[in-house]
Amino acid sequence: MENLINQINQPDDLQNLSEKELEMLCSEIREKIIQTVAHNGGHLASNLGVVELTVALHRVFHAPQDKIVWDVGHQAYTHKILTGRREQIDTIRTRGGLCGYPNRAESPYDPFNAGHASTAISAAYGMAVAKKVRHEPGHVIAVIGDGSLTGGMAYEGLNNAGRFPKNFIVILNDNKMSISRSVGAMARYLAQIRTKPGYLRAKGNLESALDKLPGVGPSLHRAISGAKTAVKHLLYNNTLFEDMGFVYYGPFDGHNLPQLLEVLENAKHIEHPILLHVITAKGKGYSFAEENPGVFHGISKFDVNTGKKLSNSEDFSSQFGQYLCEAAANDRSICAITAAMQMGTGLTEFAKRFPDRFFDTGIAEEHAVTFAGGLAAGGMRPVCAIYSTFLQRGYDQIIHDAALQNVKVTFAIDRAGVVGEDGETHQGIFDAAFLNTIPNCTVFSPAYYDELRKDLQTALYDCEGVAAVRYPRGGQLFRPYDYQPSGKAFDLYGDEGAGTVLVTYGRLFSFACEAFSRWKKQGISVHIVKLNRIKPVSAGAVEAAKGAKHVFFFEEGIEQGGVGEHFEHLLHEAGFHGAYVLRAIQGFVRHATMQESLHDLGLDADGIYRTVTDTLQNWK
Amino acid sequence: MENLINQINQPDDLQNLSEKELEMLCSEIREKIIQTVAHNGGHLASNLGVVELTVALHRVFHAPQDKIVWDVGHQAYTHKILTGRREQIDTIRTRGGLCGYPNRAESPYDPFNAGHASTAISAAYGMAVAKKVRHEPGHVIAVIGDGSLTGGMAYEGLNNAGRFPKNFIVILNDNKMSISRSVGAMARYLAQIRTKPGYLRAKGNLESALDKLPGVGPSLHRAISGAKTAVKHLLYNNTLFEDMGFVYYGPFDGHNLPQLLEVLENAKHIEHPILLHVITAKGKGYSFAEENPGVFHGISKFDVNTGKKLSNSEDFSSQFGQYLCEAAANDRSICAITAAMQMGTGLTEFAKRFPDRFFDTGIAEEHAVTFAGGLAAGGMRPVCAIYSTFLQRGYDQIIHDAALQNVKVTFAIDRAGVVGEDGETHQGIFDAAFLNTIPNCTVFSPAYYDELRKDLQTALYDCEGVAAVRYPRGGQLFRPYDYQPSGKAFDLYGDEGAGTVLVTYGRLFSFACEAFSRWKKQGISVHIVKLNRIKPVSAGAVEAAKGAKHVFFFEEGIEQGGVGEHFEHLLHEAGFHGAYVLRAIQGFVRHATMQESLHDLGLDADGIYRTVTDTLQNWK
Repeated sequence: MENLINQINQPDDLQNLSEKELEMLCSEIREKIIQTVAHNGGHLASNLGVVELTVALHRVFHAPQDKIVWDVGHQAYTHKILTGRREQIDTIRTRGGLCGYPNRAESPYDPFNAGHASTAISAAYGMAVAKKVRHEPGHVIAVIGDGSLTGGMAYEGLNNAGRFPKNFIVILNDNKMSISRSVGAMARYLAQIRTKPGYLRAKGNLESALDKLPGVGPSLHRAISGAKTAVKHLLYNNTLFEDMGFVYYGPFDGHNLPQLLEVLENAKHIEHPILLHVITAKGKGYSFAEENPGVFHGISKFDVNTGKKLSNSEDFSSQFGQYLCEAAANDRSICAITAAMQMGTGLTEFAKRFPDRFFDTGIAEEHAVTFAGGLAAGGMRPVCAIYSTFLQRGYDQIIHDAALQNVKVTFAIDRAGVVGEDGETHQGIFDAAFLNTIPNCTVFSPAYYDELRKDLQTALYDCEGVAAVRYPRGGQLFRPYDYQPSGKAFDLYGDEGAGTVLVTYGRLFSFACEAFSRWKKQGISVHIVKLNRIKPVSAGAVEAAKGAKHVFFFEEGIEQGGVGEHFEHLLHEAGFHGAYVLRAIQGFVRHATMQESLHDLGLDADGIYRTVTDTLQNWK
Repeated sequence: MENLINQINQPDDLQNLSEKELEMLCSEIREKIIQTVAHNGGHLASNLGVVELTVALHRVFHAPQDKIVWDVGHQAYTHKILTGRREQIDTIRTRGGLCGYPNRAESPYDPFNAGHASTAISAAYGMAVAKKVRHEPGHVIAVIGDGSLTGGMAYEGLNNAGRFPKNFIVILNDNKMSISRSVGAMARYLAQIRTKPGYLRAKGNLESALDKLPGVGPSLHRAISGAKTAVKHLLYNNTLFEDMGFVYYGPFDGHNLPQLLEVLENAKHIEHPILLHVITAKGKGYSFAEENPGVFHGISKFDVNTGKKLSNSEDFSSQFGQYLCEAAANDRSICAITAAMQMGTGLTEFAKRFPDRFFDTGIAEEHAVTFAGGLAAGGMRPVCAIYSTFLQRGYDQIIHDAALQNVKVTFAIDRAGVVGEDGETHQGIFDAAFLNTIPNCTVFSPAYYDELRKDLQTALYDCEGVAAVRYPRGGQLFRPYDYQPSGKAFDLYGDEGAGTVLVTYGRLFSFACEAFSRWKKQGISVHIVKLNRIKPVSAGAVEAAKGAKHVFFFEEGIEQGGVGEHFEHLLHEAGFHGAYVLRAIQGFVRHATMQESLHDLGLDADGIYRTVTDTLQNWK
């Protein structure tokens, strides 16, 4: 009976297996996932946690008529394996291969793309309502982690969806973790629920016992009658979710397949919105991941036998963390805020050394930004470290609770630019453009570690209002031996006075310099204007470019509304009469390696070289 | 003892009054507020609801050391009157006068600006943490309405703040309303609490009675012991907030001043985060407002004696509502979604006629957008009607849960552009720019009702992905008799072939036409390109402008990242060699009438006329 996995070409094939075989299938899937992630990188711990749950879901429900909506989507590998994508699973997160997250374009079994947290309840509720209005059969199931419950959107979803009559199931996949440990009251609440395994047994006994209590006058009788409900609440441990309008069942062991099958089968027939609380272990079945689920949440390639990452180098995140520790040691007003990304943003050391000034808000970017605004209004110097893509959640709060308050809030925007394998949902390609629209906001985009430190220093001590420092995923790239950053708003490099000026910012400067060395050899003169501060653009940078015959602007961010368009405006306003070529990002960027993406976008050294060389040639 | 109000020049002056006098003061304040709002327009019902609460807060606490953070801020008139701004209260919401909301720049008693909902807990928690780290004395009090509790941010705030040891008080100002009635599970939960007035009496009795119950074996004894806690929860009615880590007290009558004083005095000394549940009546003390709190939430000038609005004309919102009703009657897939703005967005009739397809999400823009994404994925045609300023909350969701999904979601963006008296927090000046950054997104900006209808039609039936129609507050403006909208992406007006081209969109077209009639008389030729679709800009519109000697672009939106910069880029790319002048909005816009704001910004007919005329003269 080996290779059960190869018999499953669509979810319906699960009906042919016995419970015993389904459990064997789970082992095979687990093995497949470990091998795949070791090779491709990806989300290991979260995927290993939901193998049984996913198998049970696809056995009991009938996708794609029944719709399974995965919150965040970093746990959908088993789902992909079971829904006709087993043979492509090796290609996951590679260019042209499967997406690491659910993707509507990829399969009818993926009803909603995900990547950001806390969206599943809202999206699934929308689908459930659509089914109702259109009189379509089937269930809609949202699978959401306890970490995602720290996000306000999930609460908005629960608040709205709790009255929907039927065919709507929320599965709370409780692994006690976001990516780091879950935080806040919800986490404590869930911890409290988890410690009460005996609820089912206790329930029946107590209710009948209460019925037998002697009456002590009518008012106490009424009170006892209320107490029965309250006791029931306590024993079901479900007050909070029931308060939100859901029928709560749980907690259940998320690795006990027979029980899961039974529970889901029962849930199918309940005419009320249900919240099923399932306890899973992140990393289940791979000891290294079970011990360090945070490290094995999203991971680059690793050695299966040792659990060691194959690459583990210094990067912008760690540099940021180091800088902030040094700064905080000298300045008691510095606080660090992360939205469930302590490790990813390089703040682990800070959290250890300055626990009173470290705040993990959970996956709650809105709160994180406004909380920072409050801290600043109270005289602190908060630094909000959030990935570019997730800071999109805080757009309104940056405007309303930071810039408009005229308080000093610093943003450390990690993963700015193309991020590689995570793909469309995670690209940090909007921050430069959306920050562009915000008054009272200064933005820096360093290319190197020493620039990062200088920019952070300037943002913290020499800026009014909002200041942001944005830096890419990974480490610094090629640096010409003769480049010395000035620490000012812009730097110049290359052939001063050349008729061709190349303007760029962030790590594209490295690529521009690589291209420059090729032009040098060919006797082509190019002057490079490197913006350090991208908002406001300094008049000096415009001045340095405005006399050129040709100006090329390369931007690792969305083109429309971006820095390149604004620079062009300033340039013409300053009297520029030459030709302006803008190369930036036009739309969503699919998964591939960072290098491949930048290449495909024409933004790597080769792309920059070719764009300039070809254009100049055409203009001859 | 008349005119107690005139004796209060700062909160400390409240200490000189007896409880009786404080109650008289409340009456005087109420009268003042009614007169002021009747004259200036503003928020009446919400302000009348918190007169006693505000007086009690300022009597018991000592601002500005103690910080009072008003959520949304539309209830701060009493606060302003008591904190040294009594004499300026007549100027509220007028140019150069007091802001209608708390404003840090205006007074040290206003610790945080507000205007958008659900931010107070996060901001106040930040201030409380700052006090703790800096060893500063004093309390921080967040006052938040039940309506604001429908916003996920409030939950994120509660989730984070519930563990903070002391000096942090959340006052839940429960008036059963957002602006319309509160919706969702939280509203039902609060309704349930409110109906249990006898809790204090019952509590003591029952607890002692439970203590006397005969033991029926150890396991039941344990269960009963748990039951006691549960009963206590039930009687205090506080499970949900206690689950979030707060000590809950309430509900209290928010118009019983002596009780409020006592409760707040006690709360001061509790070493734990507290949630005080206070029941208030929106519009309290003004019968018209008590009967119709929705109408009297935010209101333009009205007659005090009749409660009748002095102006009540047709506007873009009502036109939108009418159109959508007609469309929904013919198309069963159309759904309407509002985030607590049923009346404001013109959807009251739709809600009545199509209750199954109408969804009020509460103040939950994030959920609203993603829910729309889910509806669309399920085959419906959702239309999300949200004010421009509040849609900022949904920026990430428009990207991640609509555009990226490639589902058809339509946004009806009301109050786009300058909104007038509400000022900085409410200006709809960012939507054109932030939508500009989003791929797979089409944006229309009509100037007239018939264009609104055509654009909605096109958005619903002829667009892929996200389509937005944005329109201003109020009604349509001047329309030249000879202007006939084509229903296409752009229209032309005026002197074809003129060397001067004026490009604009939305209602600025009316002003451009007014300016045009002046130029006409002076023999100055101007050709007007009116963009109907502002994203993507059509090649035809660029073509129509590219041959001009001078192009002027006027934009009622933030300049950086806006349509004007993008148009300039396209124009140069098309080979334009003339001069380009861009006039748009540079930063936050303070309160004034819409007309005053547009005038100050140089975007009314006069401003447009002068910019073009003066520039042409200088270039001669």
